[in-house]
Amino acid sequence: MIIANKNYSSWSMRPWLAAKAAGIGFEEQIIWLRQPQTSANIKTISAAGKVPILIDGDILMHESIAILEYFAEIAPELWPQDREARAHARSIGAEMHAGFVPLRKSCPMNIKRRPQAIALDTETLASVERVVDLFVDCRARFGAGGDFLFGARFNNADAMFAPVVNRLHAYDIKVPASVRTYMDAVMATPMWREWEAAALDEAEIIADIDDVR
Amino acid sequence: MIIANKNYSSWSMRPWLAAKAAGIGFEEQIIWLRQPQTSANIKTISAAGKVPILIDGDILMHESIAILEYFAEIAPELWPQDREARAHARSIGAEMHAGFVPLRKSCPMNIKRRPQAIALDTETLASVERVVDLFVDCRARFGAGGDFLFGARFNNADAMFAPVVNRLHAYDIKVPASVRTYMDAVMATPMWREWEAAALDEAEIIADIDDVR
Repeated sequence: MIIANKNYSSWSMRPWLAAKAAGIGFEEQIIWLRQPQTSANIKTISAAGKVPILIDGDILMHESIAILEYFAEIAPELWPQDREARAHARSIGAEMHAGFVPLRKSCPMNIKRRPQAIALDTETLASVERVVDLFVDCRARFGAGGDFLFGARFNNADAMFAPVVNRLHAYDIKVPASVRTYMDAVMATPMWREWEAAALDEAEIIADIDDVR
Repeated sequence: MIIANKNYSSWSMRPWLAAKAAGIGFEEQIIWLRQPQTSANIKTISAAGKVPILIDGDILMHESIAILEYFAEIAPELWPQDREARAHARSIGAEMHAGFVPLRKSCPMNIKRRPQAIALDTETLASVERVVDLFVDCRARFGAGGDFLFGARFNNADAMFAPVVNRLHAYDIKVPASVRTYMDAVMATPMWREWEAAALDEAEIIADIDDVR
């Protein structure tokens, strides 16, 4: 699995967490963001020019949500077993893949950031409102038996939203208690802890992300 | 299936074509874009506020790529049978789902438009270059036996890129002959013809899209 900085690369985090959750073994290689050769280095591996990239024998994949589907072929428990729940998990995962742009731009993922609020514009507030509603609705409909979106098991949908959990936490955004419970459950998983520890150890700095105030 | 204007709604086109290609029966309902109640009407059905929406009994889905996965559970031939080809189909489908934004903004889908070139900015040209490379590469690696991205059968990946076929055609963008062959194959399918005929019959106008010159 070829990923970027654990502190900053939200897209890298998703398949990494899902693979760990499912016990799928992999080696990782990091391409540091914002270096002179970053883009060229990625393009020598994948013409799409984006991380994460997964190489499995002859198979070379790009795009986090496609890699999550690939993992779910190996470990079907990465999607809910119930057909209706699975349909919903894919819908909200796809919504995350292409959406919530204002939140992503205003509040970039930053694992090292100590929780500190910033002023949010109207569009970002609308993104936050939608994602909070989505969490509350999903937990109410499908969350019985555990603290994750679909209950007791961390799955591909949780992996898709994991960077949003960091954003809500790091920018100290007010959320309902039930969403805080969900966030705490995600942040307490062994794979989150492992990713976080590695991110805290990284020396690389992206100043314009660290400077968001 | 709840969709929007066939002339303009690229997202609606994708699952509609895929369902027709796989012989999955459905009824359609159109919510016209850019009306005073458009957004409110969509949100009464789906909190995400976006079309297409698929309702199948108790199941309510949003997001075209998630609906395509749902259809592939019913009709597995919507993804390639070969594991490597399927991984690639999902990668490029996901790349389409979240990418090619400059091309989507500069050259909005418009089925009625007679082919007419416009000046393309640098970012749009880069989008075009990437999608052309993607088509050529996919056809070379997986296209044997037919004119679609993965050979003889129109699948979910072709459905994802169908609106791009319209854009390349309608804005008269120069492409290699092999890409033109692919575009012609897509535009000759019965489901494309059916969608096109319905789009040509629509009276609704979105002036700022029709005015792209």
